[in-house]
Amino acid sequence: MRTIEWDEQNHNLRIVDQRQLPEKFEYIIINNYKAIADAISSMAVRGAPAIGVTAAYGMVLAALHCQANDKEDFMREMQQAAQELEAARPTAVNLPWALKRMLSVINMEASISENQQALLGAANTMAEEDVLVNKTISSFGAALINDGDTLIHHCNTGALATVDWGTALGCIRFAFEQGKRIHVLVDETRPRLQGARLTAWELQHLGIPFDIISDNAAGYFLSTGQVNKVFFGADRVASNGDVANKIGSYMLALAAKDNDVPVYSVFPTSTVDLSIDAGKQIPIEEREQDEVLALTLQGQRVTPEGASARNPAFDVTPARLISAYITELGIIEQPFETHYREFLHQKDS
Amino acid sequence: MRTIEWDEQNHNLRIVDQRQLPEKFEYIIINNYKAIADAISSMAVRGAPAIGVTAAYGMVLAALHCQANDKEDFMREMQQAAQELEAARPTAVNLPWALKRMLSVINMEASISENQQALLGAANTMAEEDVLVNKTISSFGAALINDGDTLIHHCNTGALATVDWGTALGCIRFAFEQGKRIHVLVDETRPRLQGARLTAWELQHLGIPFDIISDNAAGYFLSTGQVNKVFFGADRVASNGDVANKIGSYMLALAAKDNDVPVYSVFPTSTVDLSIDAGKQIPIEEREQDEVLALTLQGQRVTPEGASARNPAFDVTPARLISAYITELGIIEQPFETHYREFLHQKDS
Repeated sequence: MRTIEWDEQNHNLRIVDQRQLPEKFEYIIINNYKAIADAISSMAVRGAPAIGVTAAYGMVLAALHCQANDKEDFMREMQQAAQELEAARPTAVNLPWALKRMLSVINMEASISENQQALLGAANTMAEEDVLVNKTISSFGAALINDGDTLIHHCNTGALATVDWGTALGCIRFAFEQGKRIHVLVDETRPRLQGARLTAWELQHLGIPFDIISDNAAGYFLSTGQVNKVFFGADRVASNGDVANKIGSYMLALAAKDNDVPVYSVFPTSTVDLSIDAGKQIPIEEREQDEVLALTLQGQRVTPEGASARNPAFDVTPARLISAYITELGIIEQPFETHYREFLHQKDS
Repeated sequence: MRTIEWDEQNHNLRIVDQRQLPEKFEYIIINNYKAIADAISSMAVRGAPAIGVTAAYGMVLAALHCQANDKEDFMREMQQAAQELEAARPTAVNLPWALKRMLSVINMEASISENQQALLGAANTMAEEDVLVNKTISSFGAALINDGDTLIHHCNTGALATVDWGTALGCIRFAFEQGKRIHVLVDETRPRLQGARLTAWELQHLGIPFDIISDNAAGYFLSTGQVNKVFFGADRVASNGDVANKIGSYMLALAAKDNDVPVYSVFPTSTVDLSIDAGKQIPIEEREQDEVLALTLQGQRVTPEGASARNPAFDVTPARLISAYITELGIIEQPFETHYREFLHQKDS
């Protein structure tokens, strides 16, 4: 399954509409970049790696439908599109990372049509890379999972959060396919319930044993010795190793730390933002109140009419709570920045 | 409003059906002790102090409908009723506390009819005491709340969780009625959503400003310096000061501690269980899976068909995470047992 796929014949992007899962598996066909921005902000597509690649195809669509007569106009329009796409969601750095990479592809010496082709090629490469990177990440992460482990997983970091395969959930899948007997406690991940809706759905399809738990219950299972490891992804990692990730990651990491259970943050290096020093500089998106308020239980609306809500979508887990980071370059121990730069250096040399 | 009220004329108990709130405010009329046990286990009535008093009236109903011909039979039937009522929910110690107190009222020298009257008198006293105790608790707790404070409150500990007035929420109400400007972040308290459903409803009626947050979001607000204090109740307090309370309390307390925000556990002394040393000896109720799985969002079932869940209803917050305990005897600092025994000694002398 590809959650994001370019249709070569019709020049549009097909994405899985994650808002409909697990009830319905439906695709959305998108043929303009503004609809891409909408799909990202409404969370039809979500997950840091997935929104990066989706935005890259947004740039392809912007290029294909560009009305510019000259290259300067073309560049201006592309910059405008990049700006709009970047504004769709502020926290995950994979979005600006992908847009910057796409803009760097534009060659002012080449024709508009050549640039359109180059942009499509770059987006396709990013999509392919994402899958390969995730499999590499997962092979590293799987080595940390033992036969018999019970793991807590937060939010969704599977195929749905990427082009395919996944990051933190990819590690779990990889370990399972190695024959390790594992059990996953899937926290539901309020308010958007990516765990209960998406991770549970993916695990069910993969045949990996799991139970859904309320987010509140993670501390109980950790403190009663029923959990061996905690896995989650990342939306942006600061130089010092602080991790912005889906709301609730911080409390989960605290509870794991309090019980000496290792916490692994799993991400491609496109999620690292060396331009910022620490987690508190990461912009945290606050989403609409209705994501908290609109819940129903047995057909009844849960919250009283007229109540208001606050709805931050991410929090920051300080580096001190993270046992190791799992990337396509390898497993990075603390201190993050030192070891990460060593990995980058090895890769370049 | 009395959430639990004895009808002198018709000899039955009227309770607010908390499963219907905030959608509907409805009473249930109960005229036998087995239906009392059902109301407790199905959480039509919930909250440690409330279920204690409700169970006491269960004993009254058992006594009134008792078919015994002699006092020995009467006592046997009452012990049987107490056993069934106690089995309704295992964690809150207020339930066995109330039942023990009711059994101790039975006088084998007196007639069955005299005992029926004595039991009704004892239950009425416990109901009245509960309200007075809560107001005393709340006056102590309100002194810890400053003008301008933002407080996080977990689960429901208001009038609905007691006969009237409430414990942790009672402190907040008391402070508000003293004219202190406060703001409450009401965590929704999955899986049963007592925060989003009941605490929000109570605060709305009291005119106290609040916002609902997902349980996951507490860490964000604490770590960004937006919270001054955390308040929750207790279902059973061990000798060492460990507190069993609604699932999620432990992670909330960890996040508060990590940010030097005080955590107050608020309860009547009927919640203290000096017969056990530490929190890990407290039995933790695991409730039915459907409380986690049956969630719907915009009319869609959230979890995939066939998924399973784990659903512990309580967790244990270690004493080291609790700044102080607020009871009707006063504010108890750490170490809990030493100071609590001092308070008991003062009270007795």
